[in-house]
Amino acid sequence: METVYFNGKFITKEEVKISPDDRGFLFADGVYEVVRWYQGFFYDLNGHMTRLKRSLRELRINWTDTDSFPDFAEKLIKINSLENQTAMVYLQVTRGAARRSHNFPKPDVLPTVYAYAWGFLPEVKLKETGIKAMLKEDIRWSRCDIKSVALLPNTLSFQEAHENGLKECIFVRNGLITEGSHSNIFFVINGTLYTHPESNYVLSGITRKNILRIAEDCGIKIREEAVEENRLRFVQEAFISNTSAEVMPVTELGGNTIGDGVPGPVTRIISDKFDNEINSLKG
Amino acid sequence: METVYFNGKFITKEEVKISPDDRGFLFADGVYEVVRWYQGFFYDLNGHMTRLKRSLRELRINWTDTDSFPDFAEKLIKINSLENQTAMVYLQVTRGAARRSHNFPKPDVLPTVYAYAWGFLPEVKLKETGIKAMLKEDIRWSRCDIKSVALLPNTLSFQEAHENGLKECIFVRNGLITEGSHSNIFFVINGTLYTHPESNYVLSGITRKNILRIAEDCGIKIREEAVEENRLRFVQEAFISNTSAEVMPVTELGGNTIGDGVPGPVTRIISDKFDNEINSLKG
Repeated sequence: METVYFNGKFITKEEVKISPDDRGFLFADGVYEVVRWYQGFFYDLNGHMTRLKRSLRELRINWTDTDSFPDFAEKLIKINSLENQTAMVYLQVTRGAARRSHNFPKPDVLPTVYAYAWGFLPEVKLKETGIKAMLKEDIRWSRCDIKSVALLPNTLSFQEAHENGLKECIFVRNGLITEGSHSNIFFVINGTLYTHPESNYVLSGITRKNILRIAEDCGIKIREEAVEENRLRFVQEAFISNTSAEVMPVTELGGNTIGDGVPGPVTRIISDKFDNEINSLKG
Repeated sequence: METVYFNGKFITKEEVKISPDDRGFLFADGVYEVVRWYQGFFYDLNGHMTRLKRSLRELRINWTDTDSFPDFAEKLIKINSLENQTAMVYLQVTRGAARRSHNFPKPDVLPTVYAYAWGFLPEVKLKETGIKAMLKEDIRWSRCDIKSVALLPNTLSFQEAHENGLKECIFVRNGLITEGSHSNIFFVINGTLYTHPESNYVLSGITRKNILRIAEDCGIKIREEAVEENRLRFVQEAFISNTSAEVMPVTELGGNTIGDGVPGPVTRIISDKFDNEINSLKG
């Protein structure tokens, strides 16, 4: 039986009762985070906590117990016997339940806090071959920097990729490649690593930040600059990043083969260094 | 005790249990409609049904019982003793509950269908004075034609208006006035009625359509054409429309007084004709 966290209690998922007045259900008025457990620790939990607090602040959701997350996330791992596995914890915080009205509830209501954990097998094989992804006009709102649950455009776009046998949908806005439906994207052009700068058009990925740090440590030249779609033919390597995929090579994008159609050397260096960091943290 | 409709049953709101796996809660993956009961009938239920079916089709949510809505909406009115009042019925249909994944559930799951009714007193006084509204950059996605529950940008924008004592937030995209956070907007310039054409940047309002029909019947010249923000100083009248406000004059927009700062003659003609139509339907 799966045990989840709901408003301060550990209960079975079947016992969770989201109110139909919950603003997460009615308005997508909430934020989320996904953290990864590496058989003993959460990777860069500080990074996730900082981003979570920023998302909550941007939406003015007043969850006073934000700092309780690391503790109950670890409890979820243990209660569900995931301690010695690779696992994830999903957290969602909404503004809470109140009579439907576009304005925020007055007086404030308690936010709804829900979290659950699950074990998974990392995509080792895909990392060797790389993935194919599609390119699509970015139909999302202009506050993609907030990790909100207003993910309808992301799901619609990803579904289109999924039905075409592709593993991610990469967005293009005003001719510039922004990010994926649930990942950031990096490119290598003549040895320089490119990724979209932090802005309201991309989520500031935790893995993205760590990759930039690792790449810098490796002496790789970095430009946080958007790549134009029409410069894709000059790209030698591409990879996406997120908490579950870590560094995932992209060998085909929008029907164009990237480089030689296999994961490239810069991608491999960064991916290996990322793995090394994880292994050293495992101690 | 309030009785609501939930997946085929009439139960109390307290008994409704939205699953934390519901894609409405996790992804804003759902649509909604709000229909108005005029002490005996729903106004233009056909228009709402047509739009509902389109929204479901656009999201590929397969709710086979869509045509049951008129019947259970009326039952909600009657069960809650709202028959002789002005009332509303809210309907929300999500893709259903399934393990969280950006792609659609496979195999399909049953959609979640939730509806409730409430009585209200129309804003008679505000219609006499008109309202003040703010102007703000449109931060929403580019499929505003779908009546989805991904309303976070709408709530954030409306909240800003609300805190400033304003009754609506009107959006501007690329210099053009699109619509409000939960209304369409019309302008009168030299006797001609302007409103944004149907497009992916606005919701095709049911009241909007009926207003256009009524205006045409009155011999008012109509241009379904977006008004540029910088043409606001040439505007003599403005009003917003939606199912609950019907025709609501706007006397101040983005700090600019519209016309003489009182509801204008074209607005009054349309508002009166709208009221007449309702009264004639009441029989």
